[in-house]
Amino acid sequence: MNWYRNLAEQGDICLSTRVRLARNITQYPFPARLSAEQKREVGEAVREILKDEALQFIDMTSLSPAQTVSLAEKHLISPEFACDTQGRSLMLSEDEDISIMICEEDHLRIQTILPGLSLDEAFTQAQKLDEKLGSRLSYAFHSQLGYLTQCPTNIGTGLRASVMLHLPALKEKGALHRLSTTVAKLGLTLRGSYGEVSEVSGDVYQLSNQVTLGISEEAAIKNLNSIAMQIITQEKQARAALVKDDDYLDRIYRAYGILKSAHKLTTNELIKLISFVRVGVSEGILSIPAEKLKELTVTLQPATLNAAMNKALNQSERDVLRAQRVKEELL
Amino acid sequence: MNWYRNLAEQGDICLSTRVRLARNITQYPFPARLSAEQKREVGEAVREILKDEALQFIDMTSLSPAQTVSLAEKHLISPEFACDTQGRSLMLSEDEDISIMICEEDHLRIQTILPGLSLDEAFTQAQKLDEKLGSRLSYAFHSQLGYLTQCPTNIGTGLRASVMLHLPALKEKGALHRLSTTVAKLGLTLRGSYGEVSEVSGDVYQLSNQVTLGISEEAAIKNLNSIAMQIITQEKQARAALVKDDDYLDRIYRAYGILKSAHKLTTNELIKLISFVRVGVSEGILSIPAEKLKELTVTLQPATLNAAMNKALNQSERDVLRAQRVKEELL
Repeated sequence: MNWYRNLAEQGDICLSTRVRLARNITQYPFPARLSAEQKREVGEAVREILKDEALQFIDMTSLSPAQTVSLAEKHLISPEFACDTQGRSLMLSEDEDISIMICEEDHLRIQTILPGLSLDEAFTQAQKLDEKLGSRLSYAFHSQLGYLTQCPTNIGTGLRASVMLHLPALKEKGALHRLSTTVAKLGLTLRGSYGEVSEVSGDVYQLSNQVTLGISEEAAIKNLNSIAMQIITQEKQARAALVKDDDYLDRIYRAYGILKSAHKLTTNELIKLISFVRVGVSEGILSIPAEKLKELTVTLQPATLNAAMNKALNQSERDVLRAQRVKEELL
Repeated sequence: MNWYRNLAEQGDICLSTRVRLARNITQYPFPARLSAEQKREVGEAVREILKDEALQFIDMTSLSPAQTVSLAEKHLISPEFACDTQGRSLMLSEDEDISIMICEEDHLRIQTILPGLSLDEAFTQAQKLDEKLGSRLSYAFHSQLGYLTQCPTNIGTGLRASVMLHLPALKEKGALHRLSTTVAKLGLTLRGSYGEVSEVSGDVYQLSNQVTLGISEEAAIKNLNSIAMQIITQEKQARAALVKDDDYLDRIYRAYGILKSAHKLTTNELIKLISFVRVGVSEGILSIPAEKLKELTVTLQPATLNAAMNKALNQSERDVLRAQRVKEELL
């Protein structure tokens, strides 16, 4: 199930759920100290263990730049992984719900990404692969610390669970700063959608666990799930209040009008407009399938568009094509 | 034929044609020196002479403020006439193509307003009424100067002929300043759509004759017509070039999208958006009846909207109603 083509649980606010497990193998130094050849060896070992799984093995150097960046745009790999592909490989399921980055910061980054709020399911999927790999590989594990990782912030469970939340109404209310401070006290982080950057486009925020040491995976997941649900409830209330305002309603309708009519659209504007339209949809003001909106924000990103067209379109050409696609999809 | 519900000749660029004749009667001082009672006498005299014409006699004090301002919004009376209604009256045809302001600046301001470029027809209509009135009233006329008027700028023919031109492409090209200088040398003036103000909304300009002394009515009309035609040709060429630009095309499509979707629209924004959409229509990019666009810019003005609803709506209520009407009309 492509995370960006479906909604699932709480899908009008929670766009996706991601779980990743960081694992390392005892017989190799951490990836930062591996040669390209050694990285390839790790890749081959993983490929062999998972040969019966429905996962495609991708040598990252075999991809075009557009294909590589497109994977990052879809959150299937990290931007960092896309920047240096030498010796690196990726295992990817057809639905793109499972991706294993080999020799990113750690030897293995097992990631599952699902639509909506699906922490348990995502964790279970990742765990299944983790067990299979762990049964054949000698994981770097310390009896007191837990899984050892290159960056100390991941030591312990090696688990990073996150949900992407669309919070335009809380943003409009000016409630995010307070919220971000509050969740920090509860061991979570709320930040921009790519995790690493501070600028937030389209009012999409990533809520993730920070603590990996001295906490079980289950407790971390449960904690995140509970706080995500509270934020979702607050956002719902704020949306209901917001759309009673003629000015905000006007912004929703106009955003929809521009989407359906523009001749050119940048990625950034598309994301901003869709943010308004999503509120319109969730509040029953506009009737468009919300999963369509999510799909557009993902599939019309620059590299994903170029990769899909198999052409090196320039920005201006993409902006025209993007607007055309949006019109076709929304009519 | 309502000028604002029809297009007629060159109607994609020339919105309307107006001709007005200023006339005064020898037995009364100029209106500035008349009492309200004397003004009413003039009104009654005119009413009597035109009793067989299909013209409604309106005592201006009988109208609500919204009705009065609405007449000005539709260019059927001058803003000045609307400001002080005491003793003043108006004769108006059902189609609103003929309006005679009684005791505006002069005793009589005979005005005809038609859609499109229709100078000869508008002049002929005005002349017919002028002859009828002149055969019964003693016009203030000087054998060498011609018709005498309160303001010396109208002495001679007392004729002011004007056309409303929609010139977004020449504006975009930055050609209007030069054009305005050129037409001034030819005895014409190009200015904002209400004639008296310098700010121009929706790229609509009024081109009118300035010279009333030492020139025949026919020559003045012919001169104006010929220069209007030249400007129209230039605007057409400029439009054809403009819509080859993706950015301008985008502005047209977006304007249309906003018109069809906004929840609130101010008069000013409506006029600006329609300016873009009109270019789209005239260049075959959008298929909306252009007369509909013209009608919306006129009938959705504040006072006209209030007069039509027979309610004292506030601005915010009007903005919502305006947007709703536009949607209904454009869907």
